[in-house]
Amino acid sequence: MWYQKTFRLPPLARGFNLITKEIKAELDSIAKVKVGVCHIFCHHSTCSLTINEQTDPTVRDDFERHFNAMVPQDAPYFKHTSDQPDNMPAHIKSSILGISLTIPITNGKLALGTWQGIYLCEHRNNPPANRKITITVNGE
Amino acid sequence: MWYQKTFRLPPLARGFNLITKEIKAELDSIAKVKVGVCHIFCHHSTCSLTINEQTDPTVRDDFERHFNAMVPQDAPYFKHTSDQPDNMPAHIKSSILGISLTIPITNGKLALGTWQGIYLCEHRNNPPANRKITITVNGE
Amino acid sequence: MWYQKTFRLPPLARGFNLITKEIKAELDSIAKVKVGVCHIFCHHSTCSLTINEQTDPTVRDDFERHFNAMVPQDAPYFKHTSDQPDNMPAHIKSSILGISLTIPITNGKLALGTWQGIYLCEHRNNPPANRKITITVNGE
Repeated sequence: MWYQKTFRLPPLARGFNLITKEIKAELDSIAKVKVGVCHIFCHHSTCSLTINEQTDPTVRDDFERHFNAMVPQDAPYFKHTSDQPDNMPAHIKSSILGISLTIPITNGKLALGTWQGIYLCEHRNNPPANRKITITVNGE
Repeated sequence: MWYQKTFRLPPLARGFNLITKEIKAELDSIAKVKVGVCHIFCHHSTCSLTINEQTDPTVRDDFERHFNAMVPQDAPYFKHTSDQPDNMPAHIKSSILGISLTIPITNGKLALGTWQGIYLCEHRNNPPANRKITITVNGE
Repeated sequence: MWYQKTFRLPPLARGFNLITKEIKAELDSIAKVKVGVCHIFCHHSTCSLTINEQTDPTVRDDFERHFNAMVPQDAPYFKHTSDQPDNMPAHIKSSILGISLTIPITNGKLALGTWQGIYLCEHRNNPPANRKITITVNGE
């Protein structure tokens, strides 16, 4: 059984945003999948997807602060300065975190751990558009 | 052909631990898979999975030292301080390295490169429990 | 429908190299796949694969400079010094970026975003060999 859907997320501000609900809302079709995988792919190069702690918002805020320190906006070696100053760091953060996730499906549900949620990490101050996602489900 | 199994790893100390043997021990079923993929998913947010050099233990020790420098425990910008000081860095390391792997299966075996082994990267000093893994195999 | 192929990339210099064309050249078979996924796996531990901006070469140069700053060659804590000085940083960069990608297939094509290209990130000065890749396609 294959299922694929492309959709856009609601507008999200810069930072590490929980999108578990938005993803699950697109996954009605997995209720009948006993065993499988769900692949989530983001069609952009200045945001990213990751899975991490979903209960305490200070964790997500610390992610934003740490990535701003680890990939500073004013790095003296950046030559790609034709775009806004947040653009080049956004590209780098996107590749460090990655733009796709694969999650097991067990008995009709995403088999996420108790504390795990899905983040859309928005690295631009003014994202060019609602971010586009393709979900591909394969299972039996 | 689908196969899925959830199990717990043995207790592992903080650091970058080789778990190729432990993973392969759960994969008897792939002997009959000519072409496929094996997905390995960790249900936690303070450890991670990666593939890297498997022969020289100093490589794994250098990983531990580098990640401690790149994601320092005492970062002045951390606000998530309700847990132990190793908690917030553990969350960040987990997302940088990622919590799932997909490995091709060829002629009944994981198609790892000569030098590649699977690491469970334990970022907590006192991990809350034996780490839980789900393996999903799909192939023909 | 399953398809798997192992091949070697042409020689690539240290840095972040666009290989979208080289990957697509191995994917004739996906023309008949309506829905599926393409998994790309690199069998090494000192290079990596990522997806990022494909039009402006200064982006790829800034990636190289940023990773050299974030994972410095002369880190005083490295003990794995039996190989060349670029070896240990190459291992770490490989795990930060990752060595595999999964891309959705839609109507016979890789469903990459407008700006997305595939990079082979070569972290060694003198790579030991043409880098080996396995592509696994699954779909219907």
